[in-house]
Amino acid sequence: ASWATARAPLSLPVLPAPRYHAMSSQQLLVPPPAVLRQPLAVPDRLLLGPGPSNVPPRILAAGGRQLIGHLHKEMFQIMDEIKLGIQYAFQTQNPLTLAISGPGHCAMEAALLNAVEAGEVVLMAVNGIWGERATDISKRLGMGLGPLPVCCLRLPAINSSRMCLLLVDSVASLGGAPILMDQQGIDILYSGSQKVLNAPPGSAPISFSERARKKIFSRRTKPPSFFLDMGWLANYWGCDDKPRMYHHTAPINSFFSLREGLAILAEQGLENSWKLHKENSLYLCAGLQQLGLQLFVKEQEVRLPTITTFVLPEGYDWKEVTAFIMNKHAIEISGGLGPSAGKVLRIGLMGYNSTKFNVDRVLHALKDALQHCHKNKL
Amino acid sequence: ASWATARAPLSLPVLPAPRYHAMSSQQLLVPPPAVLRQPLAVPDRLLLGPGPSNVPPRILAAGGRQLIGHLHKEMFQIMDEIKLGIQYAFQTQNPLTLAISGPGHCAMEAALLNAVEAGEVVLMAVNGIWGERATDISKRLGMGLGPLPVCCLRLPAINSSRMCLLLVDSVASLGGAPILMDQQGIDILYSGSQKVLNAPPGSAPISFSERARKKIFSRRTKPPSFFLDMGWLANYWGCDDKPRMYHHTAPINSFFSLREGLAILAEQGLENSWKLHKENSLYLCAGLQQLGLQLFVKEQEVRLPTITTFVLPEGYDWKEVTAFIMNKHAIEISGGLGPSAGKVLRIGLMGYNSTKFNVDRVLHALKDALQHCHKNKL
Repeated sequence: ASWATARAPLSLPVLPAPRYHAMSSQQLLVPPPAVLRQPLAVPDRLLLGPGPSNVPPRILAAGGRQLIGHLHKEMFQIMDEIKLGIQYAFQTQNPLTLAISGPGHCAMEAALLNAVEAGEVVLMAVNGIWGERATDISKRLGMGLGPLPVCCLRLPAINSSRMCLLLVDSVASLGGAPILMDQQGIDILYSGSQKVLNAPPGSAPISFSERARKKIFSRRTKPPSFFLDMGWLANYWGCDDKPRMYHHTAPINSFFSLREGLAILAEQGLENSWKLHKENSLYLCAGLQQLGLQLFVKEQEVRLPTITTFVLPEGYDWKEVTAFIMNKHAIEISGGLGPSAGKVLRIGLMGYNSTKFNVDRVLHALKDALQHCHKNKL
Repeated sequence: ASWATARAPLSLPVLPAPRYHAMSSQQLLVPPPAVLRQPLAVPDRLLLGPGPSNVPPRILAAGGRQLIGHLHKEMFQIMDEIKLGIQYAFQTQNPLTLAISGPGHCAMEAALLNAVEAGEVVLMAVNGIWGERATDISKRLGMGLGPLPVCCLRLPAINSSRMCLLLVDSVASLGGAPILMDQQGIDILYSGSQKVLNAPPGSAPISFSERARKKIFSRRTKPPSFFLDMGWLANYWGCDDKPRMYHHTAPINSFFSLREGLAILAEQGLENSWKLHKENSLYLCAGLQQLGLQLFVKEQEVRLPTITTFVLPEGYDWKEVTAFIMNKHAIEISGGLGPSAGKVLRIGLMGYNSTKFNVDRVLHALKDALQHCHKNKL
């Protein structure tokens, strides 16, 4: 019998209400795990991978505050502040701006499943793992997929078509490289909390242009997720004219942290943050080249200033190099992902972690690793 | 032109690569929001609503620790500890046991969208807002729905059918009332972090029986979510035999907090926790009746020990009563939700908050409110 035809239980007899208390006399068959008697063990590390980055004390303190309720007026105030902070970080005046209660991947799904209906067409620029994943998500949601050469990505070209919405993923770039949502004509933009914003992972800023908002609110079908339904989320975030209603229990202290991350960015100023990331990235690139390493992206002008990717030299195993740097120097650097796995190494310098001191530290560790990890020990 | 036929841009011309740096010379049109110059404002409150509950200092401290990476071996160790803690709390030996990176609603969607395919039938016991929401989610996912009288909920009856999987929501009950997943023959069980476990919201324990696991891993179609795909999550949580792979960036410090919440429950012991919640619930019920209030659930034996619901007496507005208690006594209690909105009030006593002292505090505040909030001022 297949699951699809499991209609038999509809004729179940009506039975008396359960007596839950009777269960308490039963014997527990699973004992308390001994390992939970040990204290939580979290080593101190400098996180110079592609994120999460280290969280500064001010943001840790915000996230460590006692909770309030997800429907308290003070919480709505904090959410309004987050919204303003995202509008500044994104450089947008879109009213439909909020934070998703999940990591960047969750925002990617939220963007696609709200803005596109099954049967509609998505053109995906696939130049690495993120394009591959967005393609996977679109297929799961029953969308049609067209190819899009990556070199088409000059924004005004695409966006001049009134038949397209332009979606941009800025998880790794927001705050580190210039993004001006309104001026660049971006219709849907999302990011993550754990990169330049230096908050822990678990919340994801997102914003929709008026065109995107109109398309979402004139869907023929409900979005295939209740948790990520932008109609409900817009109401909970005060983006419509109705009284705010309970939707889900928001990750309250993740929002405290995100609010502080956005406040720090607003205090510093976007231009200063862009400048800082560019300078430290250039300083790192120069240091890598001095070690004889080759940068993965040749053209300096199109390199991401938050994450620097360089080619793994011949004779090295990326796992051995990263493990050496982690174990001996307590620094995380990362290998490639998806198509670049095994071929490159990546160093992230984001927000609080983007300092010349950290560049010196990681270059020192890398030099040490290059001396100790070669297959024919140098 | 409809969105569904937006195929024109496929013939876009090939353009040169973008020059992001050129953007930095543009003018910022959205200034830093002044409100972010104010410090984060979080009032101190006793949270006796239906959750979140207050977070004890030990768990706040765990969540305030500096991050490590989501793929570090120490993180995998912490996730393994969480898994053992959930197996204890759920009283299960299911290998497919993990925490979803989102709140309880996210776990509800994860349960449904993994275990059921579009076109298959779900029988939903609807006795309040949660049944309504699970119904909404199932419809969005294209599932067929059959009605199920709530009085059918005696577990063995339903579960004796080999054609059904039994799904139970224990968000508000886990740790406060006896649940023995394996002995009760539950196939899918999920909960939340922010109730008896006293961690902040943002992670949700879930477990699947062997029958549920087999059904999930023999699906004909991919689940309609990548973020919640149990195949990927099972791998990331070490529930299969393959090396763990990057899936999404886990909410690292939410997992630290959840681990501590589970550790505290394991130290205390499930039986003691059930006993404590029952005693304090009885103490609260007696106090409410002494104030002349009527309990919403008549039969003591089927009342939830974590949240006590009582009838809003004639002549009172629930919003005025809860606002009075919040503003004058800094205590949160809650109104009804969905079908019970406006008709009842709810008091939660969960984990750390389940003490006789808190019962006395809330009864005192409630008595005060009953004296001051009557429409014909008593």
